[in-house]
Amino acid sequence: MQKALKSGVAAVLALSFAASAMAANAPKAPPTPQEILDAAPATAWKSVAAEDLVVMNLADGTQVVYQLAPQFAPVHVANIRQLVRSGYFDGAVILRVQDDYVVQWGRPDEDKTVAQGIEKHPPAEYDMPAKGLKFKPLPWRDAYAAKAGHIDSWPAATDGKSDWLVHCYGMIGVARDVAPDTGDSTQLYTIIGHAPRHLDRNLAVVGRIVAGMDTLAARPRGTEALGFYKTDAERVKIVSAKMASDMPQGGRPAFQVLSSDTATFDAWLQARANRTGAFFVRAAGALDLCNALAPVRKTPG
Amino acid sequence: MQKALKSGVAAVLALSFAASAMAANAPKAPPTPQEILDAAPATAWKSVAAEDLVVMNLADGTQVVYQLAPQFAPVHVANIRQLVRSGYFDGAVILRVQDDYVVQWGRPDEDKTVAQGIEKHPPAEYDMPAKGLKFKPLPWRDAYAAKAGHIDSWPAATDGKSDWLVHCYGMIGVARDVAPDTGDSTQLYTIIGHAPRHLDRNLAVVGRIVAGMDTLAARPRGTEALGFYKTDAERVKIVSAKMASDMPQGGRPAFQVLSSDTATFDAWLQARANRTGAFFVRAAGALDLCNALAPVRKTPG
Repeated sequence: MQKALKSGVAAVLALSFAASAMAANAPKAPPTPQEILDAAPATAWKSVAAEDLVVMNLADGTQVVYQLAPQFAPVHVANIRQLVRSGYFDGAVILRVQDDYVVQWGRPDEDKTVAQGIEKHPPAEYDMPAKGLKFKPLPWRDAYAAKAGHIDSWPAATDGKSDWLVHCYGMIGVARDVAPDTGDSTQLYTIIGHAPRHLDRNLAVVGRIVAGMDTLAARPRGTEALGFYKTDAERVKIVSAKMASDMPQGGRPAFQVLSSDTATFDAWLQARANRTGAFFVRAAGALDLCNALAPVRKTPG
Repeated sequence: MQKALKSGVAAVLALSFAASAMAANAPKAPPTPQEILDAAPATAWKSVAAEDLVVMNLADGTQVVYQLAPQFAPVHVANIRQLVRSGYFDGAVILRVQDDYVVQWGRPDEDKTVAQGIEKHPPAEYDMPAKGLKFKPLPWRDAYAAKAGHIDSWPAATDGKSDWLVHCYGMIGVARDVAPDTGDSTQLYTIIGHAPRHLDRNLAVVGRIVAGMDTLAARPRGTEALGFYKTDAERVKIVSAKMASDMPQGGRPAFQVLSSDTATFDAWLQARANRTGAFFVRAAGALDLCNALAPVRKTPG
């Protein structure tokens, strides 16, 4: 339960548990979103393939892990895997942090490291015919698309002919120059503010951050135009980027995503749309897609 | 223009200006949102009353300035003015930073400073009958409300009977305990992620940050439940909070907000909903309310 409380958290939670325990004759309160997750069967969680996980270690000791979405942007994702494996991101940096917008990483213009073995002009995988993946619409309105919903636990939208991944908080896109086919994955960004949905269908969305968002989004904002850092000293270095599948079995991080094709996910959506419990005066009765991002957890055990 | 660029900003901007200059016979490109703001008449900007501005100086040298919205939440706002003037926030701290959610400030539970002269149980100003203020709807869908739009340059929503301020990025709410009438303004929060619209009509929204959001949103996330800081050492101190109207005329900050009741504002909304220019392949044709926050600037001169 995420709330804007006035006083100590423990006291307030204790109070609400005590109240439910005492109200033995009252109708049972519906479960909270967190209670639904806690009660989810193990089968509702899908493991992320190690081949889809990138592990970045930064010079300040923080770690960022992201999941790739090859089913949506195979050429862009193949580029990322190749760049990671060829060491392109080892020694790259955080280039840009623009408040309420993006964190962007890669190599600065003056760095002449050559990206080896990638497709320099990938197809427009951000705006292609629907790929036949199962689209599960949300029952609520979307400001931008005819239908918003989920495909295989990814936030997506559709107009019936195309499906596309959406620029929500923590989603990863491929930066590009003015020409639309210049997003070669040598620079990537993630969203750190209110979803800039106008970027949908303009830039390839290729994944999501699954760990480390709390440190990435807290980085100092850059002072140049668009939040670029002015000096190299401001740019924190990416010491290494590795595919989890190339790391030793015991030493690699592992994550699971709640499957959007489960009853647990549906119950969780409804509970988030209709918050109940002592704190809430009025339930919203709706949920924006970017407030409905599939829960991610470390693989237990 | 805020874009996820691959290469140097200057080069790309230069390129697009050059392209427009060369295309003398082509139809003139529609102005960008920034060009519309740059061309706005002085009369489109409304000065924020000094009596509605609070200036907070933090121990790390950063400054945060916020604007109050007395027309929506007069009792809550009266409490804030009283708390500021009585010195309650001088020596208060940042209590909580929860990623993709809120920054919250005030005094921790163990601090027994008494708040003097405030209404301890304010009315539910977050969910009251419409106050007769002019509501200007956006022409696009909203996921949560029957209509989203602006009232006097504030992001608002309505169901025809009630109007309320909306929890967008940078908006300020009043934290409270479980009981709905406990939001006495001794703890306030601002939104630092995707708009948590489920808080609308549950907590009083009383203002917006007009300066310093870039540092506030970049603060380290707290490690306790709900992003509370664990130790006092993690809490940065608010050295002083002052009403701008109590500061010397020459030494007080001054801001202007673009009036939502102007043709400039309408043109700016349309330009943001329909991005054009070399970079954009496809215009969204829509704009979410929280991507339509009224521009704020320092008063020129």
